[in-house]
Amino acid sequence: MRKRGAGLMVGAGNSAAGGPVATGLSRIFSRLGTAAVAERLLVVVGLAAVLVGTLPGLTAVEDRLLTIGCVAVALAFGAFYLIRFWPSKAQPRRPLSGTAIIDLLAFLPLPLALVAGMSGADARLIGILWALKLIRLNPALTLLWRVLRSERQSLMSVTTAFLVVTLFASTIAFVVERQAQPDAFDSMPAALWWAVTTITTTGYGDKIPVTFAGRVLGGIVMIAGIGLFALWAGILATGFAAELRRREFLESWDLVVRLPLFRNLGAGALSEIARLLKAQSHDPGGVIVRKGQPGDSMFFIAEGEVEVHAGAARIRLKPGQFFGEAALISGAPRNASVLAATATRLLRLDVLEFRDLAARQPELLGIIEKEDARRKT
Amino acid sequence: MRKRGAGLMVGAGNSAAGGPVATGLSRIFSRLGTAAVAERLLVVVGLAAVLVGTLPGLTAVEDRLLTIGCVAVALAFGAFYLIRFWPSKAQPRRPLSGTAIIDLLAFLPLPLALVAGMSGADARLIGILWALKLIRLNPALTLLWRVLRSERQSLMSVTTAFLVVTLFASTIAFVVERQAQPDAFDSMPAALWWAVTTITTTGYGDKIPVTFAGRVLGGIVMIAGIGLFALWAGILATGFAAELRRREFLESWDLVVRLPLFRNLGAGALSEIARLLKAQSHDPGGVIVRKGQPGDSMFFIAEGEVEVHAGAARIRLKPGQFFGEAALISGAPRNASVLAATATRLLRLDVLEFRDLAARQPELLGIIEKEDARRKT
Amino acid sequence: MRKRGAGLMVGAGNSAAGGPVATGLSRIFSRLGTAAVAERLLVVVGLAAVLVGTLPGLTAVEDRLLTIGCVAVALAFGAFYLIRFWPSKAQPRRPLSGTAIIDLLAFLPLPLALVAGMSGADARLIGILWALKLIRLNPALTLLWRVLRSERQSLMSVTTAFLVVTLFASTIAFVVERQAQPDAFDSMPAALWWAVTTITTTGYGDKIPVTFAGRVLGGIVMIAGIGLFALWAGILATGFAAELRRREFLESWDLVVRLPLFRNLGAGALSEIARLLKAQSHDPGGVIVRKGQPGDSMFFIAEGEVEVHAGAARIRLKPGQFFGEAALISGAPRNASVLAATATRLLRLDVLEFRDLAARQPELLGIIEKEDARRKT
Amino acid sequence: MRKRGAGLMVGAGNSAAGGPVATGLSRIFSRLGTAAVAERLLVVVGLAAVLVGTLPGLTAVEDRLLTIGCVAVALAFGAFYLIRFWPSKAQPRRPLSGTAIIDLLAFLPLPLALVAGMSGADARLIGILWALKLIRLNPALTLLWRVLRSERQSLMSVTTAFLVVTLFASTIAFVVERQAQPDAFDSMPAALWWAVTTITTTGYGDKIPVTFAGRVLGGIVMIAGIGLFALWAGILATGFAAELRRREFLESWDLVVRLPLFRNLGAGALSEIARLLKAQSHDPGGVIVRKGQPGDSMFFIAEGEVEVHAGAARIRLKPGQFFGEAALISGAPRNASVLAATATRLLRLDVLEFRDLAARQPELLGIIEKEDARRKT
Repeated sequence: MRKRGAGLMVGAGNSAAGGPVATGLSRIFSRLGTAAVAERLLVVVGLAAVLVGTLPGLTAVEDRLLTIGCVAVALAFGAFYLIRFWPSKAQPRRPLSGTAIIDLLAFLPLPLALVAGMSGADARLIGILWALKLIRLNPALTLLWRVLRSERQSLMSVTTAFLVVTLFASTIAFVVERQAQPDAFDSMPAALWWAVTTITTTGYGDKIPVTFAGRVLGGIVMIAGIGLFALWAGILATGFAAELRRREFLESWDLVVRLPLFRNLGAGALSEIARLLKAQSHDPGGVIVRKGQPGDSMFFIAEGEVEVHAGAARIRLKPGQFFGEAALISGAPRNASVLAATATRLLRLDVLEFRDLAARQPELLGIIEKEDARRKT
Repeated sequence: MRKRGAGLMVGAGNSAAGGPVATGLSRIFSRLGTAAVAERLLVVVGLAAVLVGTLPGLTAVEDRLLTIGCVAVALAFGAFYLIRFWPSKAQPRRPLSGTAIIDLLAFLPLPLALVAGMSGADARLIGILWALKLIRLNPALTLLWRVLRSERQSLMSVTTAFLVVTLFASTIAFVVERQAQPDAFDSMPAALWWAVTTITTTGYGDKIPVTFAGRVLGGIVMIAGIGLFALWAGILATGFAAELRRREFLESWDLVVRLPLFRNLGAGALSEIARLLKAQSHDPGGVIVRKGQPGDSMFFIAEGEVEVHAGAARIRLKPGQFFGEAALISGAPRNASVLAATATRLLRLDVLEFRDLAARQPELLGIIEKEDARRKT
Repeated sequence: MRKRGAGLMVGAGNSAAGGPVATGLSRIFSRLGTAAVAERLLVVVGLAAVLVGTLPGLTAVEDRLLTIGCVAVALAFGAFYLIRFWPSKAQPRRPLSGTAIIDLLAFLPLPLALVAGMSGADARLIGILWALKLIRLNPALTLLWRVLRSERQSLMSVTTAFLVVTLFASTIAFVVERQAQPDAFDSMPAALWWAVTTITTTGYGDKIPVTFAGRVLGGIVMIAGIGLFALWAGILATGFAAELRRREFLESWDLVVRLPLFRNLGAGALSEIARLLKAQSHDPGGVIVRKGQPGDSMFFIAEGEVEVHAGAARIRLKPGQFFGEAALISGAPRNASVLAATATRLLRLDVLEFRDLAARQPELLGIIEKEDARRKT
Repeated sequence: MRKRGAGLMVGAGNSAAGGPVATGLSRIFSRLGTAAVAERLLVVVGLAAVLVGTLPGLTAVEDRLLTIGCVAVALAFGAFYLIRFWPSKAQPRRPLSGTAIIDLLAFLPLPLALVAGMSGADARLIGILWALKLIRLNPALTLLWRVLRSERQSLMSVTTAFLVVTLFASTIAFVVERQAQPDAFDSMPAALWWAVTTITTTGYGDKIPVTFAGRVLGGIVMIAGIGLFALWAGILATGFAAELRRREFLESWDLVVRLPLFRNLGAGALSEIARLLKAQSHDPGGVIVRKGQPGDSMFFIAEGEVEVHAGAARIRLKPGQFFGEAALISGAPRNASVLAATATRLLRLDVLEFRDLAARQPELLGIIEKEDARRKT
């Protein structure tokens, strides 16, 4: 999976840095994308101002300063929004997509509320909407979303069961406890609150059954709660396994079809290979393989170039070439470091899958071993 | 899986609506079935009346109005029951099946209790039985039920272990804490209550061990509780994976055998294909594929018809035909929207399974690619 | 899996009962085994006496009666022990196996404690050891045990991580909270108690951090606790899936090799078939298939005999024969009920596995279809 | 998997002990490695001193004694460090690896703090760093680590979702509760504390919503918390299954390639066999198979030697030989005990996998059955 915030890098530099510190910094920046870094920083600073602004005992000056700070953050997000969605011929962007709405919410409501006469202390609370940016900046949440969507029927069933159990439990608790504790269990809504805190095993302790029947009921509700939780966990575990398998296949299929090594294979063999390889991305300067470390995988270059540091020598490898097979075949530690020279996408072949591939595609194993022998001489 | 409440649609219209709003409304109604919608609404209204009716400080007028409302809901459910189970030649229905009993419980007990002289406030509590309707209206609960039944032995083992641990923990707690806290741990039942709230990690805080031995015991009980919960989750995850696989196969096998495309294949090949395809249902007017969106699946029509909206053109596809293969083959976004023209059952083939199928049934891939080429010209 | 308490049936009758009630009762008795039923009943009665005996305010008479009752239960367990482990030529039993020790603990300690001069109230508490019988009577716990044993390394790792996190959390809590709350966090053991109740998310509320640093720490500990629990659940889910697969294979392999239908198949084919079939047991009179119900499985008889109730006719099927294939092939409801005539062991073939088998063993499918056609005529 | 602390055995004896007690002791020592045993003991003793040292009411003498004890433990760890990392030609060790840093932290900081003038009571708290040794001594934690690393993206997504939900929940709780409970919900940080204790279902009960809106929010937060936990559990279950499979394959591949029995097989067949066999280690004197017990696995010797105790006879088996196949083939109990004569690595073949292997490698089955027949005569 691409490790950067998807499509958000406004000025991410690709500079091949000189010294190790510069390399480190450049890697951090290029990995996150400078725009994404700035946005995340603004979110953190803004949310801190929102939180601090609710502490009791702020002076009028502090209150004003915090309001100014929050407005500044909102305006900065406005600037981001304008840069990103400014109409341009080259890349027309939809200003009302989900992403754009999150960006708008981070920018407009706070100043508008102040203009409409809301007090600074209340208007600053609107800044909590900035937290939505964290969701937009996290590309892996789409995976979560797909799992929840594909398992929604089972999850809803468990939720329905949860609802019905809670309703019945609160009715029984209301009936058996209302005489013993007329204050705590004075109505069904009160009993419902007890049932929900109990079935989720939260157990605040503000309402506790005291009758024998109430305690037996309480025990049953707690165990039912654990069971419902376990059901959810079971459903989601199943969904995750399926969705991850699908996603990894899509990513590696994408790259496998472009490798010349696999070009004259049929769709069936390609499908098998795509199932065995795993896609991974590296930013320029990133270390892929470190000399002396144990190695249990080899790599095929799908995009970009890598640099092999064997002693003082520097060897460039281009898309379609592979490396790291020596450690895989012999089990010895890596005999050279390999760094990404440009932004690189690789297909990793782990040892377990290598054995599998060797069994199913012996001719491929032959190519790899011939190349390995050639390199050793 | 069929997305409607199974077999409950009394008057669900199949009208192909004109404008988009009408389409939307018609979709909502036909998806849920008007009768099911009405029943769910009644359940929600009725339960709200039951909850509100327990609040302290109701006036006599409010009390009477709520009772009348609850009786009205019960009578409405009675009407539903009569309509559904009225003896008819065409579809004889069993008036004492599980479903019918839930419907009877929603209807008879409340009026009977009032007739028998119960106070309105108490009789209204009987309305909580309406919640059972939510279970009957949820077809996916049968899946839950099958999982619980197939894993009942393992689940019971964990429950037995839970029981034994709880009993021993409460005995030890009783012995070590009764001197330090004669009030809180005055008997084994009191110690059991502590053990249950602790092993389920509810932790009300009404009984807390204070001796050193009691606290060590408490820590062990908490960790044991987490372990038991984890065991349950593990068992249910395993059961769910198996049951879902079985269910999906059954649904798609049902449709695969009817497709002419697969007619001259052997049972083995059919079984493989049924494993790869996933069944899904659409109501008339439902959007199956939206133009411009990324597409990673193709569809075979098993039942009903769909309409392809390519620009201004409208193309009807009938059972046995397929669509969406262009995006799957080329990886480009969808080049047309496809809507369900009638109630439709489709077999979806996702990209991962498409590659698999292409490898195992190359002749099928040939058919799909030929059709794709034909459509493009 | 055999559904009876393994090897405990002293007098389980095999009487083919007349009326439906008698059949029901005989099924219950033969399923549990009368000895096992009696033992379970004694355990429940005994434990109830132990619990009641700790309630405050018992009179001297009640106290004595309860003591006599508990001694009686212990003596009854002694009688069971003697019957079971009485040295006999036919079946020599080891009087010091795990099972025997549990039986001894249920019998000896309580009377010995009374003889040694312990008060009745204290001696009765020893009766809690009877709960161990529930474990011995539950054959499925060995499955749990195997899973825990095979995953013990991973589980221990998580437990070590849990220990280290708890120790560090309590040290930090002690340092940051001891000034603010010198009473609640007066020592590391007190802080440890807080850490354990928090990391297990029990949250009694008797010790709560109040400083900012303490609350940040508390939040981290809670989330870490959820993560550790999730790790355990993940490990156990993996272990359960593997162990269940292994166990089901063993059970069905055992029966498959004895079926004449499969006799002339090689080890490979047998292994495949054993993987697809599932073993199940029925007591005499048990209903295997009910007429009119939907059917998605067929059965091979491995041991015992079944009776097909087709209208008024009664057809006996013997080991090696199969039934239920009609519903599987046509998808129609069951056209006859089938009951176990004697204690029966069957191999169930579900529809998903049936398709699989049909693909891999076409000649077997031929046999089944020929027999099905013969029966229909 | 090797059961010893990896690479820590300084003086683990390989003495073939005489009597059973001596054998037991020698097994315990050789299994753990005497150095590892000593270190673990020191950690336990040291941590106990740290905990006891924080109890209120210690006399000056006790305080001094505990400080001396802690310094002694730190110095002992210093000695271990020097022995282990003393520069030697034979095995150069890196004194600043992760392991070495943990060892240094266990040794230097405590004496340095005392020298710098910290009080004994405070300096002893530094001893909590010794707990890190438990992590270093636990080789299976690397497995945990790999799982967490490979699933880090999904786990981080859930954590982000958790953060955003918590932030929004605390804002809403602050808004709806601040009028009703100005003390408990006086600021956003206070509301955040409530949200975290609620979403993790800890539920201390120090802050409890009292308004209707607050309680509805509370219920939603609790259920969201359970869902997030379930997501984590699902992700980790998936990751564990993949990682365990990979690890077991690597271990058994390592041994399979060295067995002469498999030498003339191709890479594909070897890969299949490595997938079916499971590696396990035994220390000298360890019982591998016990006579009379049910047996459902056979063993191939990869390293070391074993001794078969058939009656009074002692038969030595060497690497490349196998045993235990009789019970596997006939289903009878083990007819002999087998003990490890030296440190031994075995490949275990369970019955389920045996059937599989027999189907795929019939010639291998032939070899095993021929050898079995030879042994029986």
